[in-house]
Amino acid sequence: MVVRAPATSANLGPAFDAAAVALDLWNELEVREGDGVEIEGEGAGELPADGTNLAVRAYALLADPAGKRFRFVNRIPLERGLGSSAAAIALGLAAAAAADDPEELLAAGRTLEGHADNLAAALLGGVTLTWEGRIARIADTLPLEPVALVPRERTATEASRRSLPSTVPHADAAANAARAALLAAGAAAGDRDLFAAGLDDRLHEPYRPSPTLEALREELPAHARGASLSGSGPTVIAWADDAAACAAELAARFPEHDVLPLAVSPRGVL
Amino acid sequence: MVVRAPATSANLGPAFDAAAVALDLWNELEVREGDGVEIEGEGAGELPADGTNLAVRAYALLADPAGKRFRFVNRIPLERGLGSSAAAIALGLAAAAAADDPEELLAAGRTLEGHADNLAAALLGGVTLTWEGRIARIADTLPLEPVALVPRERTATEASRRSLPSTVPHADAAANAARAALLAAGAAAGDRDLFAAGLDDRLHEPYRPSPTLEALREELPAHARGASLSGSGPTVIAWADDAAACAAELAARFPEHDVLPLAVSPRGVL
Repeated sequence: MVVRAPATSANLGPAFDAAAVALDLWNELEVREGDGVEIEGEGAGELPADGTNLAVRAYALLADPAGKRFRFVNRIPLERGLGSSAAAIALGLAAAAAADDPEELLAAGRTLEGHADNLAAALLGGVTLTWEGRIARIADTLPLEPVALVPRERTATEASRRSLPSTVPHADAAANAARAALLAAGAAAGDRDLFAAGLDDRLHEPYRPSPTLEALREELPAHARGASLSGSGPTVIAWADDAAACAAELAARFPEHDVLPLAVSPRGVL
Repeated sequence: MVVRAPATSANLGPAFDAAAVALDLWNELEVREGDGVEIEGEGAGELPADGTNLAVRAYALLADPAGKRFRFVNRIPLERGLGSSAAAIALGLAAAAAADDPEELLAAGRTLEGHADNLAAALLGGVTLTWEGRIARIADTLPLEPVALVPRERTATEASRRSLPSTVPHADAAANAARAALLAAGAAAGDRDLFAAGLDDRLHEPYRPSPTLEALREELPAHARGASLSGSGPTVIAWADDAAACAAELAARFPEHDVLPLAVSPRGVL
């Protein structure tokens, strides 16, 4: 049995802890008779190669991992805000699941990690919103193409989350609600102007300083219409009319980053 | 020359100060050679019948009202959260305007009153979002039908606005962004489940106590999927699968209110 789970980018600017999108960059898991855990690619020699592996723990929520051999091929960079943990959980759940109700899998997966937004998009693909344990899939794709700028340093999401304030100005909350509405209407309608107008956040990006995001916003590439921090960063997504052309410009401007022209994936692990 | 401007309902729950919808309930203005101001219907004997009339002041922003007679037929209740002021401004602007760029008219109208959200929907019809002086029209209609419960008492919007706190919990701001995204995606896609899931607000409704809204939410009518405060109230909108059936139930339960089964109007004053 082989399953594939996509990278995901959460928040998409103003829709903090709610919106996420699946990206065409995949981790794979093959489960066979046998035992042991084998990891190739991202996280090889670093991620636990035993029963404490996150994907194996997710598998164990729904099925018995005894007598199984788990072989991973990982392409999603670790701790860069591209949903590698959510992908691991999605792989384990999907490989084990007899049933495939997304909200049941989400509830199971959240016992291992709190990020429902990434996990929803990893499960269902496309563009998702999550709230109170529920998932809505609002579009197959987005009207702009994502280009990921992946810095070499890593971010621990939990530490990044502690940098957020406990209260915010009412005006910031109202501005975010308006931008989230624009973003979601743009996603649902496939309207790039609306989607781009929504790419502005006051709830998390200002509290998670990103030199990459600042540099990008100061001078948007010719083919980009906006940018967002991917999850809690450090990866930044440039949202482009033409991902390949945008990536070429960004690779020249940001030689210290990995620049990945990506596509939205309409498919998730399910 | 005769122009018609619709009633409007702003906020739609979580999209505070941003979303609004035009309703099929109209004020009319006829402008002829002559002079004087005549008002029939809502506000007759109360609204100023001279050059200080809000619609006449809006007209005067763009054209000379001298030598003109203004005759109004008003059906939108005053100071109930149904956009009667925005309709007045829209009437004056539309009757005077040589050009009809909506964002130019919005900028002109905002010099008279601050509520860009209502005015945007009154100008363009359908479902609108406003932000930073800009307008996006995200749908012709909504997937649920509005039933207005109009209490007899009035609300002064400016006083109601002072009841809002200067800061809110980050969690409330995040919840509102998620709900605004659901609401707007539901509006753009015509999806009633998404739209209804979005009908939940923490930025203004909790600070504007409405016995009508509380009673409605405590026991939603059989045909209703949710409710929202219309603007700053006191009118409450029940969002129904079937406005006529919902209105019949509400009229029996709320005999002290005017219960108006309405439709979303895809047309505005323009």
